[in-house]
Amino acid sequence: MEDGDTIDAISHLALDIGGSLIKMVYFSTSKEQPVDKTKNNASRDSNGVSNGSKDGYLVNGRLYFIKFETSKINECLDFISSKQLHYRGVQQCGFPVSDKNIIKATGGGAFKFADLFKEKLGISLDKVDEMSSLVSGANFLLKAVPSEAFTYVNGKRNYEQIDHNDLFPYLLVNIGSGVSMIKVDGDGKFERVSGTSVGGGTFWGLGKLLTKCKSFDALLEMSHQGNNRVIDMLVGDIYGGMDYSKIGLTSTAIASSFGKAISEDKELEEYKPEDVARSLLRMISNNIGQIAYLNALRFGLKKIFFGGFFIGGHAYTMDTISVAVDFWSKGEAKAMFLRHEGFLGALGAFMNYQLVQDDSVRLVGDKNSNPLVEDLNDNGIIECCVQASS
Amino acid sequence: MEDGDTIDAISHLALDIGGSLIKMVYFSTSKEQPVDKTKNNASRDSNGVSNGSKDGYLVNGRLYFIKFETSKINECLDFISSKQLHYRGVQQCGFPVSDKNIIKATGGGAFKFADLFKEKLGISLDKVDEMSSLVSGANFLLKAVPSEAFTYVNGKRNYEQIDHNDLFPYLLVNIGSGVSMIKVDGDGKFERVSGTSVGGGTFWGLGKLLTKCKSFDALLEMSHQGNNRVIDMLVGDIYGGMDYSKIGLTSTAIASSFGKAISEDKELEEYKPEDVARSLLRMISNNIGQIAYLNALRFGLKKIFFGGFFIGGHAYTMDTISVAVDFWSKGEAKAMFLRHEGFLGALGAFMNYQLVQDDSVRLVGDKNSNPLVEDLNDNGIIECCVQASS
Repeated sequence: MEDGDTIDAISHLALDIGGSLIKMVYFSTSKEQPVDKTKNNASRDSNGVSNGSKDGYLVNGRLYFIKFETSKINECLDFISSKQLHYRGVQQCGFPVSDKNIIKATGGGAFKFADLFKEKLGISLDKVDEMSSLVSGANFLLKAVPSEAFTYVNGKRNYEQIDHNDLFPYLLVNIGSGVSMIKVDGDGKFERVSGTSVGGGTFWGLGKLLTKCKSFDALLEMSHQGNNRVIDMLVGDIYGGMDYSKIGLTSTAIASSFGKAISEDKELEEYKPEDVARSLLRMISNNIGQIAYLNALRFGLKKIFFGGFFIGGHAYTMDTISVAVDFWSKGEAKAMFLRHEGFLGALGAFMNYQLVQDDSVRLVGDKNSNPLVEDLNDNGIIECCVQASS
Repeated sequence: MEDGDTIDAISHLALDIGGSLIKMVYFSTSKEQPVDKTKNNASRDSNGVSNGSKDGYLVNGRLYFIKFETSKINECLDFISSKQLHYRGVQQCGFPVSDKNIIKATGGGAFKFADLFKEKLGISLDKVDEMSSLVSGANFLLKAVPSEAFTYVNGKRNYEQIDHNDLFPYLLVNIGSGVSMIKVDGDGKFERVSGTSVGGGTFWGLGKLLTKCKSFDALLEMSHQGNNRVIDMLVGDIYGGMDYSKIGLTSTAIASSFGKAISEDKELEEYKPEDVARSLLRMISNNIGQIAYLNALRFGLKKIFFGGFFIGGHAYTMDTISVAVDFWSKGEAKAMFLRHEGFLGALGAFMNYQLVQDDSVRLVGDKNSNPLVEDLNDNGIIECCVQASS
């Protein structure tokens, strides 16, 4: 059925099926790109598998991250089918046998598309709670991946060394189609305290209607070329070029998003789509930053981690969110971003296989030492060593 | 220069010149519609003027409320010129003489258009701080006007009797082009604690771009006919019709405003403008309700008064804001609305003439007893008795 020489040994596929995007994570011991065995102390066989661990199975390999549009779910099904991810016995990766026809899935699509997976691929989706997955994924990344978190100030990333003993509590803001805000107090200890419907789906959906731009990435790129001052009503537009300094609003602060469109006798087509996209991005980013800050304040949280595909490593988005948090908190709270931002839920579902334990997962490389690991704004890879429970 | 028999005796014009709208308030002892003298105990002459007050001058008359679009400021100038509001000596209303070429004005336009008023009408604008005006106006209305405030629950207004001794503190949310949130601790005691650029100007500006609808009122009316579920991505759309009950989100909750536009292969023109307007109104109203609640929570404020022209007495807007505050506060906080919502700033500027003192202003009628007093979604009148400082 397959060509064993060219297809990776793959196991433990996990999915996060959101309203807009499907995020996929799976583990593989690649035959084409052998793992560097010198970096792990445990003895292992030629497939990178060690059976000698007292606590279970240690396997070197890579975590793969892939995304699809939810509206094109057939592409995801075809991918699984073509890679025969669901057929690959887990033994091939050295893990104990588990039911290969069950895969972990989170997000609303785990409910919505359960029948479709059963019908097309014969796969049952084992549903993992969405919030729980996000938290597991974030905690894993923050603890296990060096330089995972960074602040974004004046156009520069400053990587943060996270002190594992001083990680909790924090506010996790996941910006998917909608936005969830979760107060995280520890592993498995969390509460969804807030959220907003003005999220990535709003940017993409409203942006598509306004600019006719078909893809999220193109829209984001387009916004980069725009100028929000063309359509936003600034404080200076109302105050005749002056600041409203008494309440700390400069003349360039946005008084009313899209407010300039009221008085101008221009139709939508007469505005540059780049400017429209920019105003929209700024409105949404700023709003999320503000609501996040207000929730952090409410619970006395100083650290706010922003994740989700909306951010996409996009400089202007991160800058707007950072400035919003800084402005509203008067410098008290700090916006931080995650290199693997889009895959928190999928990683969390993956970890629900109970194969990965925080302390036993070792990453073979990070961005600085291993060029294979890139920022996961799109698809990507983390090299790691995974331990199976015995 | 004028026909004394048909033009009212007018004094003390005050303006609130915002980014989108100009709000005007002036006092008049109308000759055409004589004031009912039986409702006031003070003796007065045939023009409704009493000079016998120990503390100053008592004048019966009416407060007039009129709005213009800021982009059509010439209409406002023409109105002032045609009514010769700036020429009318204050003596005609029985007040002491003040400089008739100076009028009180607030809002950014008091700065922006100062030269225009000087040039066209020879009027100097005496600038009154915007936040201070909003607070003065709100405090006046809440103390002096019976049944000014109401909650909006299940499509019904419930008028609230405000206990003057239990009014403060409260959160004043003024939704103009942008939104200001002000913590009010007393007369003249306040702090602007928050705000958002997603306000009435966003609804109007973005709505105009999306629907080609030219006027704010028409857009509001249009939204009344729409269905937001056509474009918004609901929780049920993601979860296959199910609730995400674990975190208290029903299947009909909006997960992502405008999110359904992502996956549908439809252009803007293929959506009904009514549906677009409805989604936009709901997004903005809900967002303002949420940010207001978070700020009320932060300062332990139980009462939130919403003002500004955005609301416009529109049922769906008030319903969305009320539900948002109720949902996020779990019933702890209460959204209240003001019958004269749009004129807070203008009234505040008017009161800056130092002619009106809260305790000395008596209203001759309210909505229940006097059909002349209508809700001021548009222009309107309050009959009242004004006391000039001696």
